Amino acid sequence: MTHPLFEQHRATLDGALAALAARGYWSPYPETMSGKVYGETANAEARARFEAQLNTPFELDQPGSGRVGAERSPYGFDLGITYPKQDIDRMLEAAQAAISAWRKAGVEARAGVCLEILQRLNRMSFDIAYAAMHTTGQGFAMAFQAAGPHAQDRGLEALAYAYAEMTRTPGSVRWEKPRGKGDPIRLDKTYTVVPRGIGLVIGCSTFPTWNSYPAIFADLVTGNAVVVKPHPAAVLPLALTVRVARAVLKENGFDPNLIQLAADDAQAPVTQALATRPEIVLIDYTGGPAFGDWLEKNARQAVLFAEKAGVNSVVIDSTDDAKGMMQNLAFSLSLYSGQMCTTPQNIFIPKGGIETESGHLSFDAVARGIAGAIDGLLGDPARAVEVLGAIQNKATLGRIDEAARQGMVVLGSRTLEHPHFAGATVQTPILVRVEASREDVYTKEMFGPVTYLIPTADTDDAIARATKAAKAKGAITAAIYSTDAQVLEAARDAAAEAGVSLSCNLTGGIYVNQSAAFSDYHASGCNPAANASLTDAAFVAPRFHVVQSRIPVGA
Amino acid sequence: MTHPLFEQHRATLDGALAALAARGYWSPYPETMSGKVYGETANAEARARFEAQLNTPFELDQPGSGRVGAERSPYGFDLGITYPKQDIDRMLEAAQAAISAWRKAGVEARAGVCLEILQRLNRMSFDIAYAAMHTTGQGFAMAFQAAGPHAQDRGLEALAYAYAEMTRTPGSVRWEKPRGKGDPIRLDKTYTVVPRGIGLVIGCSTFPTWNSYPAIFADLVTGNAVVVKPHPAAVLPLALTVRVARAVLKENGFDPNLIQLAADDAQAPVTQALATRPEIVLIDYTGGPAFGDWLEKNARQAVLFAEKAGVNSVVIDSTDDAKGMMQNLAFSLSLYSGQMCTTPQNIFIPKGGIETESGHLSFDAVARGIAGAIDGLLGDPARAVEVLGAIQNKATLGRIDEAARQGMVVLGSRTLEHPHFAGATVQTPILVRVEASREDVYTKEMFGPVTYLIPTADTDDAIARATKAAKAKGAITAAIYSTDAQVLEAARDAAAEAGVSLSCNLTGGIYVNQSAAFSDYHASGCNPAANASLTDAAFVAPRFHVVQSRIPVGA
Repeated sequence: MTHPLFEQHRATLDGALAALAARGYWSPYPETMSGKVYGETANAEARARFEAQLNTPFELDQPGSGRVGAERSPYGFDLGITYPKQDIDRMLEAAQAAISAWRKAGVEARAGVCLEILQRLNRMSFDIAYAAMHTTGQGFAMAFQAAGPHAQDRGLEALAYAYAEMTRTPGSVRWEKPRGKGDPIRLDKTYTVVPRGIGLVIGCSTFPTWNSYPAIFADLVTGNAVVVKPHPAAVLPLALTVRVARAVLKENGFDPNLIQLAADDAQAPVTQALATRPEIVLIDYTGGPAFGDWLEKNARQAVLFAEKAGVNSVVIDSTDDAKGMMQNLAFSLSLYSGQMCTTPQNIFIPKGGIETESGHLSFDAVARGIAGAIDGLLGDPARAVEVLGAIQNKATLGRIDEAARQGMVVLGSRTLEHPHFAGATVQTPILVRVEASREDVYTKEMFGPVTYLIPTADTDDAIARATKAAKAKGAITAAIYSTDAQVLEAARDAAAEAGVSLSCNLTGGIYVNQSAAFSDYHASGCNPAANASLTDAAFVAPRFHVVQSRIPVGA
Repeated sequence: MTHPLFEQHRATLDGALAALAARGYWSPYPETMSGKVYGETANAEARARFEAQLNTPFELDQPGSGRVGAERSPYGFDLGITYPKQDIDRMLEAAQAAISAWRKAGVEARAGVCLEILQRLNRMSFDIAYAAMHTTGQGFAMAFQAAGPHAQDRGLEALAYAYAEMTRTPGSVRWEKPRGKGDPIRLDKTYTVVPRGIGLVIGCSTFPTWNSYPAIFADLVTGNAVVVKPHPAAVLPLALTVRVARAVLKENGFDPNLIQLAADDAQAPVTQALATRPEIVLIDYTGGPAFGDWLEKNARQAVLFAEKAGVNSVVIDSTDDAKGMMQNLAFSLSLYSGQMCTTPQNIFIPKGGIETESGHLSFDAVARGIAGAIDGLLGDPARAVEVLGAIQNKATLGRIDEAARQGMVVLGSRTLEHPHFAGATVQTPILVRVEASREDVYTKEMFGPVTYLIPTADTDDAIARATKAAKAKGAITAAIYSTDAQVLEAARDAAAEAGVSLSCNLTGGIYVNQSAAFSDYHASGCNPAANASLTDAAFVAPRFHVVQSRIPVGA
């Protein structure tokens, strides 16, 4: 008997499966903030709920001993929200106890429940948007899209990938082996999808839902329980997520402890203790390389999916749309103040300059052109703060200062006043010219609105330096501008060798730091930036195994 | 353009893909030793080649500095074969240099070449049989099947699984995102399968080809280079394999260093040095748990697929064919002197006895029945040595002695003279009654012809003890005999929880220690016996990733 939620959401799942196979554009969760889609009052109601939540304990049906929480909006105020503080032993015991019935419910029931959770999350996209904006510092529109529909897309993508993998093996088969004489040998065989156990999902402070949903849904649909450990600076988006997931589980007769929130704060962090528990057999991590390396060394009992950091590069060889290129780069460098693991850090430009549709441009002219495009984009403060958002972590301000000392400042970082949030920390990007010999400078990751412009001997030298940096330090994105098909081909080949996703000649409304679920892979898993990709088979297949039984027919 | 070898072998690949999806009986490589299949003179010619190879350097086109090799047949003579001794730096450099062109050749060319290698291996199954017999100690017929067609099946299975995973993503797509007004955004995207790098395949002494082919072919077809490190006691079967693979690669214009043999001997072992090199990014290991644990701790730069060891159990609740059960168990315990990771070690039987088609049987009667069936099976020495083979490792003799001191010996192990090989080490199985309280005894892995018969309070107690042992120490197989559907269901559930493949009521020509490619999973990956399964998606998917590029249409 098919689970009713599976029937209800089957079209969404089928759409996702078809999209993953074709990899064309597809999304079931509209990215537009339109009232026609989400309801005319949805935004205002969500805003009121967010404001009512401030300075109030977050209601969550997990037994806690005390409360934790010290989030502060990058827009300049304390959230004042507390979350139940969890006992690790109790959480893991509760998670373990929940798994058996969840496994036995089968693939379709689990998929149906997970799809229902995603749909509920979609309906509350405005709630998630306010929570994400005031924890990550993203502008509101970006917070809505990235933490809402785009994160839901990524969750659905992982769910569908896992579903496809689990259903490659039939539930049962009659096996008949012919024999020379006499009847064939006949066995009835059954195959059962078995989860690994408890997964730990460690969220980050900049994309708390987008980077966590793939792991959460891949773990759940394959039968595992999940402990969600949010970054102490970005708890609310995941707390809302866990609460609705628990509600859907409960409504459908499953143990809500299949998903639990492990909120902590900087005073009493719990991640290391959780990550090294033998019950934790899967870990998904997004964050800085230092803690990623610690997990690799110490969380040896678990399969680790880690996205750490990298040094993304742009190579400019030539273009037939110099203005479009500069505007496109300006937006990529400014969006969310470069606080994305996909933002370019290094722009390599031949020191002799480049050819464009209107003739030769010197290195300095290209540099000035990008700087000018950034100034143009961010000229109007009201628009600028929507693009830039706010600086999530004060350490980023230190990196801007550090960058200014590394070479010739082409464009200085300016502090902007936010028209609505007096306490918001808003900075425009800094552009610094750094010589190619200073590999030590430009291969150090500078998370935030820091971009180095690096003159190279020629285009080959530029590609070689970008490739070398990606192989050594990791990279999630790369971009090239060239009117020469051979140069593009060389760049594609270099990107494949370095395991970096490449964007070529982007001049319009698509940016190197954006990736579309069901079509673009986020990170490749084959350079130091990440050991996993969102989403490929390697991301979902290790989360379960198949256990079989067999019996002679009639026995 | 499709590669000619891909076209030539496409039907085999299609058959494998269909079989994996359906999981019914299928094999393209006949397991019969018939002259009609392999050629009437194939056996004699292979035997002559084997004898000519003895006491002679093995020809392999790998530059070596000196020779290594000290294999001794378990049938009582030194092989006297030497292999080129390899320099690790040179090997890894040569492997690395070979990868790029292999990647660029694409999935179909790689699949075609790998399928051709498998077909050549199939044609030389008698050569592989002699090599396997005189390194592993298997009887000739078993050596032919297990090291020949069955190993080829497992290699093809992994190849097909990897092919399916790689071709889930199209090579390219046109992506069109609708916009409210104006034309959609159009991007052309390409997707490239990229290998991880160099895989290390560490063979074992008992199933050198069967346990290595899945990794070798999964690595190669996904674009990686492979270093094959045979067990020093079982080099020849893998040396033959590497030689033919190199020949096929070379004939087809690829660098033969995509597969290299790293033979060593006990005096100068190379596995630890190889396994910790940064260039080695994939490791497949079959062998004892001590070295498996060492790899887990030390080979941190690589993805590790490890099959270590376990304690396999049988539970006897009841049967309607006592004689069939006892004969089936007798064969399972005797085959290759229990030197299989799938051989049962513990047989749990209710102390009050069991019900059978002819009434009640006491514990002692069941124990005596199994002992009698073993005696019957091994009564004729000529037949006995074919079933038992020879003892591969002298340490196994020590375990037989140790077992005899752990409880009451129900059936003693006898030393048999081999009718053709005077120096062969042949032992019959030992059966020892061990009390249920001696968990310390029966949960210690006793590789070889050692079986404990353990009286339990009842069937539930038997299932619980088998499950506990599997969870704690690992298990690859389990078996149950019961006429009660509820007991069978309870056993299935327990086996799923413990991640163990379960065989129910086997009385005919199928044995618990056998698994059929394309239908049976070998190991589940979810208990300490192994962290991987032959073959599921998790075994192949982490060996490659997909790297994409995208460009606006017309740009």
